[in-house]
Amino acid sequence: MKMQTLAIVAAGLMATTVQAEPIQIIEPAVITEPEKVELGKKLFFEPRLSKSGFLSCNSCHNLSLGGVDALPTSIGHNWQEGPINSPTVLNAKYMLAQFWDGRAADLKEQAAGPIENPKEMALPHDVALEVLRTIPAYQDEFAAVFGDQGITMDTVTDAIAAFEETLVTPNSRFDQYLAGDKNAITEVELEGYELFKANACSACHNGPAVGGTSFQKMGLVKEYITDNPELGRYNVTGKESDKNVFKVPTLRNIELTYPYFHDGSVWDLTEAVKVMQEVQLGLPLSDEEAEKIAIFLKTLTGDQPQITLPILPPSNPNTPRPAPFK
Amino acid sequence: MKMQTLAIVAAGLMATTVQAEPIQIIEPAVITEPEKVELGKKLFFEPRLSKSGFLSCNSCHNLSLGGVDALPTSIGHNWQEGPINSPTVLNAKYMLAQFWDGRAADLKEQAAGPIENPKEMALPHDVALEVLRTIPAYQDEFAAVFGDQGITMDTVTDAIAAFEETLVTPNSRFDQYLAGDKNAITEVELEGYELFKANACSACHNGPAVGGTSFQKMGLVKEYITDNPELGRYNVTGKESDKNVFKVPTLRNIELTYPYFHDGSVWDLTEAVKVMQEVQLGLPLSDEEAEKIAIFLKTLTGDQPQITLPILPPSNPNTPRPAPFK
Repeated sequence: MKMQTLAIVAAGLMATTVQAEPIQIIEPAVITEPEKVELGKKLFFEPRLSKSGFLSCNSCHNLSLGGVDALPTSIGHNWQEGPINSPTVLNAKYMLAQFWDGRAADLKEQAAGPIENPKEMALPHDVALEVLRTIPAYQDEFAAVFGDQGITMDTVTDAIAAFEETLVTPNSRFDQYLAGDKNAITEVELEGYELFKANACSACHNGPAVGGTSFQKMGLVKEYITDNPELGRYNVTGKESDKNVFKVPTLRNIELTYPYFHDGSVWDLTEAVKVMQEVQLGLPLSDEEAEKIAIFLKTLTGDQPQITLPILPPSNPNTPRPAPFK
Repeated sequence: MKMQTLAIVAAGLMATTVQAEPIQIIEPAVITEPEKVELGKKLFFEPRLSKSGFLSCNSCHNLSLGGVDALPTSIGHNWQEGPINSPTVLNAKYMLAQFWDGRAADLKEQAAGPIENPKEMALPHDVALEVLRTIPAYQDEFAAVFGDQGITMDTVTDAIAAFEETLVTPNSRFDQYLAGDKNAITEVELEGYELFKANACSACHNGPAVGGTSFQKMGLVKEYITDNPELGRYNVTGKESDKNVFKVPTLRNIELTYPYFHDGSVWDLTEAVKVMQEVQLGLPLSDEEAEKIAIFLKTLTGDQPQITLPILPPSNPNTPRPAPFK
């Protein structure tokens, strides 16, 4: 009986190996609450959610730049140097948790953090809420979307998350390939994909976002040398074994989201593949093979969200004023 | 003969007083070179035209915020405090010159300044050009728009100016009123407009942009007290009589472009009207009248440009990297 069960499982695994792809197609966003999404978009671009009145979510998750700032680590209030590379907001809904260390369970929980983080937007939540509550257009929009729940951090982050849920990048050439169009990628790109699988990159970089499905140690087979002191998952769990463990980043739009890794130390994609091979896998990989994997990875660039820039309602005389230089 | 001439002039002035309005309707932008405008839009949102890779034209001329940053003075590279209030880019094409002191003749000349200004985007022009020249998509777009002129500061600023030319705000309620729809503004708003004219606000704030047609001394009848050391037009001409002379700002979208004046010292529109009355005109104006003028001024908010956020092409490994913290 036990042998029989094992045989069935083994057969199932073999079938999986033969047929299933480690990467799944992502679908275009289906917007069921357009007013909430529109409000969330305004808040995403709202610099008055920062102490300076100058920084918004879009400052570090720039939707013109693949949802990142394309800097090693971010610039925060008063030009403070951030501790870690800004992860892309694109396809972030597919992540098992948010932030590199996964300390936020979901997009909604994530959105509250940077607003009040003194190294990021540096605005206490109570002031952020007062800003929004003193602006009649926001009062009206929150009432329309959230009824008598009003303007709270709960509704603010709910709206931002609803907008971020729409930030997916379907229709990459690789998705077209997965959907059956075998001509959507070139022979070299396909070779790169085969190498990606054969070298176990897909052991961690899998699922619809080609990542974001697990936490893994950075430096699995060889220590990863970095000046960046961040300890990753250890911050959340306090477990020794979680030191240098980070959420596996998405590889979708990786062509746009340089520089790479949590420390933003590598700018070139082929070099990033080689570093991964060295510290995570330890498998032999020639320069040519690394190059082919990088070429494949560029097929993961999807349709970027088409965003009409929101027009933000003006402050009132009683709206708390920005304090950029205090 | 001389008497006769004077009589004709006087009759002409009376006719003007009776018939002509000091404010002209602005028309929607007519785009004749869409590819150039689209390229200019990319450059307007391009943070790689700054040393940090973080600041773009849109940082201080934010098209979500009426074309300004809504700060007293702007934030530049390394969080430096700018010397003067950021003027709106909206309807800037109607200005007789650019910058508060008019040191740039036109939008094209203006666009070159902030890129290399060490207190603003802080990127030498040669590096800015190298950034663009190393990005194939920009090479292609410049070739399509400018032929063999290539990527030069001349073509870069030409494209940015072409985009900025489109940033007009037609169809304000006051424009509808001027076009003949007498119900487009309320009775109080019309009273405000009559006060605006009767109190000679329109002596300087006139033309399609309701300003931008002349340079005037700030503190015409009474010294304007400010901590801001800027001397305005004197910077350009070196003439003693040009000290504290500034370009008259546009009043279109003034509801959105607080805080007011070149020093950004006043946040409330009614208060700004009172300050103007005091230092420029010296005419008696009650609080109620100032309030009515402010109410009228809010009818000048026009349709804001609908901007689809550009998707910027990725850097190449040989593209000069941003240096935010150096």
